[in-house]
Amino acid sequence: MAERGRQAAIAGIGQTAFSRKDERSELQLAAEAANAALLDAGVAAAEVDGMITYTLDPTDEIGMIRCLGVENLAFTTRLPGGGAAAASTLHQAMAAVASGVCEVVLVWRSINQGAGYRYGRPQAVGTWLPGGGTGSLLWCMPFGAQAPATWAALASQRYMETYGVTNRDLAPVSVIQRKYAAVNPAALFFGKPITMEDHQQSKWIVEPVLRLLDCCQENAGAVAFVITTVERARTLRQPPVRIVAAAQSIPFNVEVISNYYHDDLTVMPEAVGTARRLYEQSGLGPRDIQTAQLYDAFTPQVLMQLEAFGFCGRGEAKDFVSGGNLELTGLLPVNTHGGLISEAYIHGMNTIAEGVRQARGTAVNQVRGVEHVLVSSGMAGAILGRV
Amino acid sequence: MAERGRQAAIAGIGQTAFSRKDERSELQLAAEAANAALLDAGVAAAEVDGMITYTLDPTDEIGMIRCLGVENLAFTTRLPGGGAAAASTLHQAMAAVASGVCEVVLVWRSINQGAGYRYGRPQAVGTWLPGGGTGSLLWCMPFGAQAPATWAALASQRYMETYGVTNRDLAPVSVIQRKYAAVNPAALFFGKPITMEDHQQSKWIVEPVLRLLDCCQENAGAVAFVITTVERARTLRQPPVRIVAAAQSIPFNVEVISNYYHDDLTVMPEAVGTARRLYEQSGLGPRDIQTAQLYDAFTPQVLMQLEAFGFCGRGEAKDFVSGGNLELTGLLPVNTHGGLISEAYIHGMNTIAEGVRQARGTAVNQVRGVEHVLVSSGMAGAILGRV
Repeated sequence: MAERGRQAAIAGIGQTAFSRKDERSELQLAAEAANAALLDAGVAAAEVDGMITYTLDPTDEIGMIRCLGVENLAFTTRLPGGGAAAASTLHQAMAAVASGVCEVVLVWRSINQGAGYRYGRPQAVGTWLPGGGTGSLLWCMPFGAQAPATWAALASQRYMETYGVTNRDLAPVSVIQRKYAAVNPAALFFGKPITMEDHQQSKWIVEPVLRLLDCCQENAGAVAFVITTVERARTLRQPPVRIVAAAQSIPFNVEVISNYYHDDLTVMPEAVGTARRLYEQSGLGPRDIQTAQLYDAFTPQVLMQLEAFGFCGRGEAKDFVSGGNLELTGLLPVNTHGGLISEAYIHGMNTIAEGVRQARGTAVNQVRGVEHVLVSSGMAGAILGRV
Repeated sequence: MAERGRQAAIAGIGQTAFSRKDERSELQLAAEAANAALLDAGVAAAEVDGMITYTLDPTDEIGMIRCLGVENLAFTTRLPGGGAAAASTLHQAMAAVASGVCEVVLVWRSINQGAGYRYGRPQAVGTWLPGGGTGSLLWCMPFGAQAPATWAALASQRYMETYGVTNRDLAPVSVIQRKYAAVNPAALFFGKPITMEDHQQSKWIVEPVLRLLDCCQENAGAVAFVITTVERARTLRQPPVRIVAAAQSIPFNVEVISNYYHDDLTVMPEAVGTARRLYEQSGLGPRDIQTAQLYDAFTPQVLMQLEAFGFCGRGEAKDFVSGGNLELTGLLPVNTHGGLISEAYIHGMNTIAEGVRQARGTAVNQVRGVEHVLVSSGMAGAILGRV
């Protein structure tokens, strides 16, 4: 943790253009995003001595070393847990920098669902990779629960039933995020706002929980970050964004997407644990956070994270989001790039990039007076702030 | 690094019985080894807050949490690079503990090559998993280099040609390690010593480099460690083994097994880099090390690591090993459990377990007066010592 060692900061961010399908390999996409992040920071690739990506990322470290010209790597690791890995990358980069193992950590995620593995498709038993997060999903498949939307909908349905949330109550999340995306040139839905009725007329994916416009996208692109010490970051090209706190939390009986075994399906216990650790580490609370970038594979996850992080009480998220609080004029602008649903699905990494832009003050939909940004991928999160 | 934060120690080690093929799943093997390590340390599973394994390990974290009763995990990661990951686990556990992110890290590797994926078999293009270390191996396969023995033999052959090393010069490594295994009840070759002539009569795997008795085994088993702070370890059941130094090193143009692109194929540059970092961190040198446990998928790797870590000069390893120096009465007893060739191939993790036993003074083939043990998996290594 920060007080015990050196402090870590995000010094650079980079991304490729996002598209439905890309002709380039995932390695090329990753290298382009990494180069962009290094250029953004003003750091030479030769200085990179740490690399972090997801277990699920198809780009190999040796390929990245060759593409970029990394000279002597001192630390590599890969994070399990699917999209839950997103904010874990910041947590582990912080540990590597704080412990003195690394000076400059490169983090990336590259995805090309048009050309490669498509996450939304039904999966068969045996296709789940080591490090995908859980083997327990295999038990769902014989019963027809074969895709992320189905897995997510089961827990969401319990939450919605308990608190009287209907699919229409999810629409504001989708509509507001689309509004953000509509003015974000990087978004796949740039220039394409939607209405509540558009949401309600989109086809059911898992009735009565998720419609098409409640779901993230299948697409291609890569996002990368450069993380170093606060001290070093001060000398670089961009205003450093400090990792004020970062944490991972996997309580007993939590699973990736399919949290069916824990005591109360109406809460997201991993996010509750992440929140507690972040607030303990930082001494901050929900009122100290001006904008949140929350992992939104599906709209109900936004509601459940709002409750887990204490932005509203349990069962109150429905009213919180319908009251306009996620707007730039609201209490807590959320997913101001459009989110995974409306900007692009780079497995949560574009969500963190938006957190960095908000902390820098350079977002397209910039929130005023940002001091602290929450970025969350449920099982992990970070609070970012200016140095 | 140690001086910047809290110091890390190995507080417990555990392993299953090793066998050619096991009826138990890899998850069960992993959980049994983990329980044994926790029992060895005297730490409750509920206290584990960090987990580290290989990208290639088929055991999922969620399954381990359920089997063991881990209550709230704060850190998970997986290490790429095949067997090169072995000592990286110590490096990252050290970073997690030193940075304050974790109090108790559980490390494991579980393998069941009889029932699952067999590493020694020829592989076809497309079977290499993300995080396996490199996609470049795919380029070897169309030319018939489809298995680890072939990949390793290519670089070894250059080394052997340059320094006049013949296959007979490799025999002492195999014979001495088998001598150690023959009195080690945990070894697959317990009670089965071999002679130089047995080695020379074993069948060629890759002529003229590797015979059968130059190669590691395909088998089943699991090994686990518990790593915590030195302070905490002092209060536990076993004499703590301090991670005096730990490092990873992946220089440009290094690859997993197939190091064909770097300038000089007769050296192992990743091990040279690891050595430099370990000696810099610790202030120690090869003369301060009483025994070395070196990753030995194939015998030539032992020779090349002896040179990389400075135990002898370049091209001198042949004479070093033929002079009896790897024996208990020699200058540097090596792989005193029998190594991956003669104890079992738990992907380098049983090599580290032996390092811990040597530091504790509890090895079957105990080296006298051990102050520092080197454990190396080439791309990573650690120096272990008593607290």
